[in-house]
Amino acid sequence: MANELREFPVATERIYTGKIISLRRDTVRLPNDRVTTREIVEHPGATAVVALTAAHEVLLVEQYRRPADTVLLEIPAGKLEAGEGPEDCARRELAEETGYQAAHWAKLGEFYTAPGFADEKIHLFLARGLTPTISRPDDDELINLRKIPLAQAREMAFGGQLFDAKTIIGVCLCPEQ
Amino acid sequence: MANELREFPVATERIYTGKIISLRRDTVRLPNDRVTTREIVEHPGATAVVALTAAHEVLLVEQYRRPADTVLLEIPAGKLEAGEGPEDCARRELAEETGYQAAHWAKLGEFYTAPGFADEKIHLFLARGLTPTISRPDDDELINLRKIPLAQAREMAFGGQLFDAKTIIGVCLCPEQ
Repeated sequence: MANELREFPVATERIYTGKIISLRRDTVRLPNDRVTTREIVEHPGATAVVALTAAHEVLLVEQYRRPADTVLLEIPAGKLEAGEGPEDCARRELAEETGYQAAHWAKLGEFYTAPGFADEKIHLFLARGLTPTISRPDDDELINLRKIPLAQAREMAFGGQLFDAKTIIGVCLCPEQ
Repeated sequence: MANELREFPVATERIYTGKIISLRRDTVRLPNDRVTTREIVEHPGATAVVALTAAHEVLLVEQYRRPADTVLLEIPAGKLEAGEGPEDCARRELAEETGYQAAHWAKLGEFYTAPGFADEKIHLFLARGLTPTISRPDDDELINLRKIPLAQAREMAFGGQLFDAKTIIGVCLCPEQ
């Protein structure tokens, strides 16, 4: 780490403890000795899955997102449960959201979604060798499954027709063959 | 919009009003008539800039991010000020964070960073024709500027060496020529 940039916490205040996210406010000392505050959303972390069919289609889910007040087209994803590892979470979310399981898994990367104000890190996986399995979606998660050729999904990303960050990343980082 | 997926708010509770983000909790009725709550981080929106030099290098900034507790390598970015349009914000942030202005601007896309819990939308721009300008960084924003060949930045994205979502998207969506 470029240590000359590091901020040191001098106090923290818990503002909200919620169902999925929590919020705290840290008071930090900057390297130039100024003191300021940082608002930080705490999130358990998540996984997202680029699931490819034998026909090289990618599984996408349409889901209403209350924060955006719109339906977004996204790769399957979901938050880590307590004690759950990223790959187990990815397997569970793929089954819950699409009804598929995958024989072959590979990690494509991991990234912070909004590091200016949130600690959410997404672990991104590639899943192949799909076969149907039992799907048990969350009671409050209503989604439509779609299959779109990977080449078309990439065109949508480059054409500004995908609006979810992890989905753009997934179709861009996915191997073309 | 796939209207059969839409949720309808029946109540909202303001939890926190902050410096950069705010937090509310909506009670919503789902299409299946179940009622649940959604925690929503409100953010003013932001811009991010892929700024390319004549030598086809991309300008990146190293910045300590308190939520991640680490230094991240990112494309220049920042939040919209009140009444500010996305392109004006992009010009301001590029100057503040890198000391450059750009003659040629193009929109690369826009996306939600974390639509499961936050309404932040990032407007992504491509900037070329860079010339030095006067830089006035925020007092509480300490950054190091780096120039990395675009081809190398893309290798870093594909090799899992970039950890900021908007930066991965920026180097992937940027035209190679």
